[in-house]
Parts: sequence; structure tokens; C-alpha cells
Amino acid sequence: MALLVQKFGGTSVGTTERIEAVADKVCRFRSEGHDVVVVVSAMSGETNRLIALANDIMEEPTPREMDVLVSTGEQVTIALLSMALQKRGCDARSYTGGQVRILTDNSHNKARIRDIDAHRMQEDLDAGRVIVVAGFQGVDEHGNITTLGRGGSDTTAVALAAALKADECQIYTDVDGVYTTDPRVVDSARRLDRITFEEMLEMASLGSKVLQIRAVEFAGKYNVPLRVLSSFVEGEGTLITFEDDTAMEQPVVSGIAFNRDEAKLTISGVPDTPGSALSILKPISDANIEVDMIVQNVGQDNKTAFTFTVNRPDLKRAQDILRRISDEIGAGEVIGDSKIAKVSIVGVGMRSHAGVATQMFEALSKEGINIQMISTSEIKVSVVIDEKYLELAVRALHSTFGLESVGVDENA
Amino acid sequence: MALLVQKFGGTSVGTTERIEAVADKVCRFRSEGHDVVVVVSAMSGETNRLIALANDIMEEPTPREMDVLVSTGEQVTIALLSMALQKRGCDARSYTGGQVRILTDNSHNKARIRDIDAHRMQEDLDAGRVIVVAGFQGVDEHGNITTLGRGGSDTTAVALAAALKADECQIYTDVDGVYTTDPRVVDSARRLDRITFEEMLEMASLGSKVLQIRAVEFAGKYNVPLRVLSSFVEGEGTLITFEDDTAMEQPVVSGIAFNRDEAKLTISGVPDTPGSALSILKPISDANIEVDMIVQNVGQDNKTAFTFTVNRPDLKRAQDILRRISDEIGAGEVIGDSKIAKVSIVGVGMRSHAGVATQMFEALSKEGINIQMISTSEIKVSVVIDEKYLELAVRALHSTFGLESVGVDENA
Repeated sequence: MALLVQKFGGTSVGTTERIEAVADKVCRFRSEGHDVVVVVSAMSGETNRLIALANDIMEEPTPREMDVLVSTGEQVTIALLSMALQKRGCDARSYTGGQVRILTDNSHNKARIRDIDAHRMQEDLDAGRVIVVAGFQGVDEHGNITTLGRGGSDTTAVALAAALKADECQIYTDVDGVYTTDPRVVDSARRLDRITFEEMLEMASLGSKVLQIRAVEFAGKYNVPLRVLSSFVEGEGTLITFEDDTAMEQPVVSGIAFNRDEAKLTISGVPDTPGSALSILKPISDANIEVDMIVQNVGQDNKTAFTFTVNRPDLKRAQDILRRISDEIGAGEVIGDSKIAKVSIVGVGMRSHAGVATQMFEALSKEGINIQMISTSEIKVSVVIDEKYLELAVRALHSTFGLESVGVDENA
Repeated sequence: MALLVQKFGGTSVGTTERIEAVADKVCRFRSEGHDVVVVVSAMSGETNRLIALANDIMEEPTPREMDVLVSTGEQVTIALLSMALQKRGCDARSYTGGQVRILTDNSHNKARIRDIDAHRMQEDLDAGRVIVVAGFQGVDEHGNITTLGRGGSDTTAVALAAALKADECQIYTDVDGVYTTDPRVVDSARRLDRITFEEMLEMASLGSKVLQIRAVEFAGKYNVPLRVLSSFVEGEGTLITFEDDTAMEQPVVSGIAFNRDEAKLTISGVPDTPGSALSILKPISDANIEVDMIVQNVGQDNKTAFTFTVNRPDLKRAQDILRRISDEIGAGEVIGDSKIAKVSIVGVGMRSHAGVATQMFEALSKEGINIQMISTSEIKVSVVIDEKYLELAVRALHSTFGLESVGVDENA
């Protein structure tokens, strides 16, 4: 008899048939005696249809009106899912973000949740109703419709779970959990029963696109137990937990994340003086280009070299800016390289285990893979390598850290 | 420098190109110095698309969820039109029914407006903004989304005009005004510059589907000057006025309305006793069948006959009920006839002119058209005739009452 918040994404509600399947699932939980709040996204394709209409009229539609427009997508889904629930004899009521008073700031298209009024929802729950809430949207203090930006529905679900003190926030998606690495790259990749919030954050930010990083942060902040499950396959999914007593049993490395979305830029012959990093990176961030890894080599002859990574689509723009800066500060060549990949090992166990990085470098070296950049944090080690070695590197590391799924021996 | 409320229906905003055309029109009014509040419907086809989705799930979707669903249609249009206005440098802001606080009762799918909070709109108008409001929708006192039912956007426009004390409420549609009769039937039908509210009510209820009767009633009640114009053709349209000093100049008959949507039922041999009308009509109205004209012939041998008209799709159902009643009360035959048409002459001038009905009957008689039923009110006379004579009757009456357009002689 738990209170569950369940979130179903666009693919899970992509057709009326799939909405009916979601209703079946929700009803099953209800019949087991659980209270359920459902958060849904727009039917897949719908948001793009709406954006296309807007772009017919304006290349860069005003953010306020864009929010009014795209928020209709989720509103359609909440009505349809509520109908499907009611058809099954399951009392349900739909609410837009504004109606359950998901109060946000006024940053249209990327609003942040400030407060949720759980009062009305509690009344419905007490009356035995399933509550169906439109994800991704809210209202500012003046009642203007806002949207939360990419992955906003996950954030809505976590925020509702926090406000209602739900027992679990379940994110239904098209994968059945968080894996040690991408099963498309490593056959023996294994679903994790549990993963800590910190690990999940590193995995998410490194390209395991199961959950939006913002939702994970939010869940961590408000201690909301989060579970990733499949909409289409039965199973326990992966529970994202707070680090606890079981930490002692944690494996050293929990997963291998990777990412081919970045490009590398190097500017050499930079005068090795205070402020040179600033003079290079400020114009880049002023141009709204996000920088990920940054490495500065030790200088020689009062010259140094900077290398950093940006999102691939920003490479050309960053390179142009860097060439201009190079002229200004009298630095040397600017080299861009988009054929790179970032591979990371992630695990809270690293904290108490020395030599994990060394193990990683050794495994890569054995395969003849050259490391171009290194960056480390408390629970991860990332390297940049030539893109063509990506799969090889991921498989080697997956095996080195013993992440393979183990054959089950029923007689054991 | 007037305050105008302008309403554009689904056809007028059916594509992004048409929405841009509406924006052009609104901007023109703005540049002439007028304040403008725009009310829009869903893009044509959109409401049906949404209803089809609902029917995929449920044959009779719950009214509350249906309102959540279909209200998204207008919300899409307000966002797109606001963008189109902003693109033209015309400051604009969109609002859903709930956001401008169009407070309704809680009768989902057919809600009635109770109150509008004009405060927020006034602020926008003072700031020089065009306000774009979603027609057809509101919220009840608990914040549930409601819709006003058929033609609701006209009603929204009139209600906003009343709340804001607008100088004129302009209903843009696909015809360029109210005509003396349907131009598809009578070539010489003429656009009326003015028509009184009462006449418009009779014309609307009799099948001149230019304006929803409810919106006309509302406008009459709150003294809102209403104008019907074309979205696509320039022109003055038809102003719907309060009867005033110009009444003296009113023609006797302003227009000829007609309607082929009804069917006639006759039950004969009804015992001519008190309560017989009730015993016949109550079961009909209990079955939610609307009755229009009712005629009771003078009885003979203590028997009488009742004739009444219903909407054609209800004929079979009404006939079955009537046969049951006939058995119960010992009446005679029940005859249904769907091949009928109703033709009416409408005009406030009738009040002060005797003999108008006679003139009508004479004109029909001259054409050899038999009158099956007659019903009169203060400003109209309606007859039921054989459907096949409909066009002939309308043309004869149009000519008899001098409604033809007159050739313009520039030298006159």
C-alpha cells in the first residue's frame, strides 16, 4: 500500500493503443491497493508537429507563446489517459501543470519548479482517484504557462513525488533499467538492480540517456527513491538509491559510460601568463558554447597549450572564435578534431579503492588505444580517445572491471 | 479609437497562412489606433481530430476529460496568432479561457459563462497589447476546464465585449453579412446593413447559421453591438442593432428564413380532454427530443389531432414513442413526414403592420403551394410546406416583400 508516482514518456503514450496499455498497468497497481499519481509526456511526434506549426510562422517564436503552444501536447495525453482509466472503472482525474499549481519561475522554455500545492492532489488521493498530471509544464506566479525544457516530464514526476512524499517515483521508458554500459556495444552488459544517485548523475551526464540529469539531481536533493523501468517489458528495473550501509558491498566500478557528441579543440603556443585561460575560455562561454573537459599542459619556453571539448555542433563556431583569440594574444595554431569519443568508468567504490585509474589506463594500453585527454572526479575517470576505438575501449573496460552478466546456474 | 473584440472562426484560422492573414487584418486595426481583443476558435479539423482520438478510447468520453482534451485546440491557435502578430511588430499576448478567468458553471461540454475578470485584460490593453483569447472555453470555480458547447467562441467574444464594454463585437466568418435570404436559393438576395437583435434571433433560430443564437441573445442582454463580417472579403458586413429611432424606417419584412432540418408528426383521434397535450408531449420531451412547432386542430366528435415538428434525425424515435402513447390513450393513427420545410418571414416592422401574414399566404397560394402548418410570433410568421416547394416559396416571398437588391444607378 504505497504511494507511487509513475511517469510515462512520449513513446509509452505514442498511440491510443499504448495509452490503453498504460491504463492497464496503472489499474493493476491500483488493484494491488497502491495510490497512484501518473505523469505523462506528449504523444511522440506531437511536440514536433506543434513546433513545425510555430516555425511556419516564425523562425524563433517568442518563448511565452511557444510554451502556450507546446503545453497542449501533454494536455491531450492527460485527457486521453484519464478516459482510458475511467473506461476500466478506475476513477481518475486529469490536471494540467497549472491546475495542480506547479509553480515555476518565469523562464519560459526552461523554467524551474519553485513549489507545488499538494493539497488538491491529496484530496483526490483520499477519494481513491488516480491523478493524471501533464508533465513538462507549470505556471509562473502570474498564471503564465511555462515549460521546464528537455526531459521536463521526469522532473515533474520527481517534484510531485517530493511534494507528496511518495514512496517511489517510477520512470517508465523504453529500456528496462540502467545498464553497466550500452548493451548495443557490449553484449554482456548487465542491468543494475541498484545504482547510487551520484553514479547515476555521472552516468546520465556522460550519455546514458535513460534519465534526465536534472530529474536525478532533484530526486537526490529531496531524497525521492527513483526507479527506472520499461513500459513494455515486465521487470524490477533499476532503483536509484542513496548511498547507505550497503556501500561496503559496492563494486569498485558500477558502469562504463561513453559519449560521441563532443569535439576537441587545441590552441598551442599560448603565453604562459596569469589570465591566459580566462582570455581563451571567456569568449567561448560568452558565445553560449558549453565546455566540458579542459586540460592545460605544463608550459615550456613560457608557452603552454590548452585543450578542451565542446559539443560537436559547436566545433566550427568555437574554432572561429579561438582563431580570433589566437591572433589577439599571439598564440599559435588552433586545431579542431571531431573524431573523438569520451569513455568513463563510474563508481562510488572508487572512493575507497586506489589504483582504479591505473587499471583503466592499463586496459586501454593493452589494446593499443592512445589516451588524448584525462579528467577525474571523485567517482569517475574519463578519457578522450580516437572515436574509432570507442567500442573496443568500452568492451575492454567492461571486462576489466568485471561487469559482465554472469551465467545463472540453477544448481549452484 | 474604439475598443474592438474580433472573433475569427475555425475556417478563418484553418492554416498558418490564414492565421497570418488574420494577423494582417488585426494589425491594420491596431495601426488605425483601435484597441483589439481577438477571440479565436480551433483550426478547422483540429477539434474533430481530437474527438476521434477520444473515441478511439471511449464511445462516450467523460465530459470533464473531453473538455480538457478539446480545449487544447483553441490554445494552439492563440499561441500561433500571437506569434504572427509579434512577427509584425504588434505586441500581443495569448490567454486561455482559464487565464482571463472566464468563470463558468460546471456543466462540462455546455457550460454557461458566469463572470469575466476584465482587470488583467485592461492592464494589457493599457500597455498597448493585442489580447488573443481562446474561444469556447472557461473554468469553473474549482479551476476545472469547461467548454461552452457549439458556437461557444461567438459567445466568448460577446461576453468579453460585454465585460470590457467594447464599442463593437465583430464576428468574422465565411459570409460577408446577414442576407435577406440564402443567396444560393435567391440570386437577388441582398446583404442587410443592419438588422435588429430580435430579427437576428429569429433568423438564427430558423436556420441562417451565420451566428449562434446564444451569442445573439447574450449580445442583446448586455447591449453589445454585434457585427458580422467576412474574414476573406473587405466590407462593412451587417450590424446587429438595438431597435431604435430608425425603427420607423424599418421595412415590414427584413428577411426570409428557412429550414429543412425538421420532420412533422401527426397523431389523430386524440380524445379531446384536458391533459391530452401533456400526455402526448411529455414522453417526447422526456426522451430529450426537441419539439418546434405545435398545432392542435379544433376537435370534432370529442376527438382532436395534434401535429408537431421535431428535428429530422429524431423522427423515427418520436414516432415509436407516439405509437406507444396512441395505444395507451386510445388515439388513432400516427403519421410521420420528413419531406417538409419551414419557411418564415421575419421583421420587426410586422408589429406595426397588419396583414403581413395574409400577404404571405396569398403569395404562396398564387404559386399553388399548400400550407400544412402555421405558427406566428410578434415578428415572424412561419409555415410548413412540402419540401419540394421550398425554393419556389422563398423566391416568391423574397419578391413579394420587396427584398431584392436594387440595381445601383450612379446618375440617380
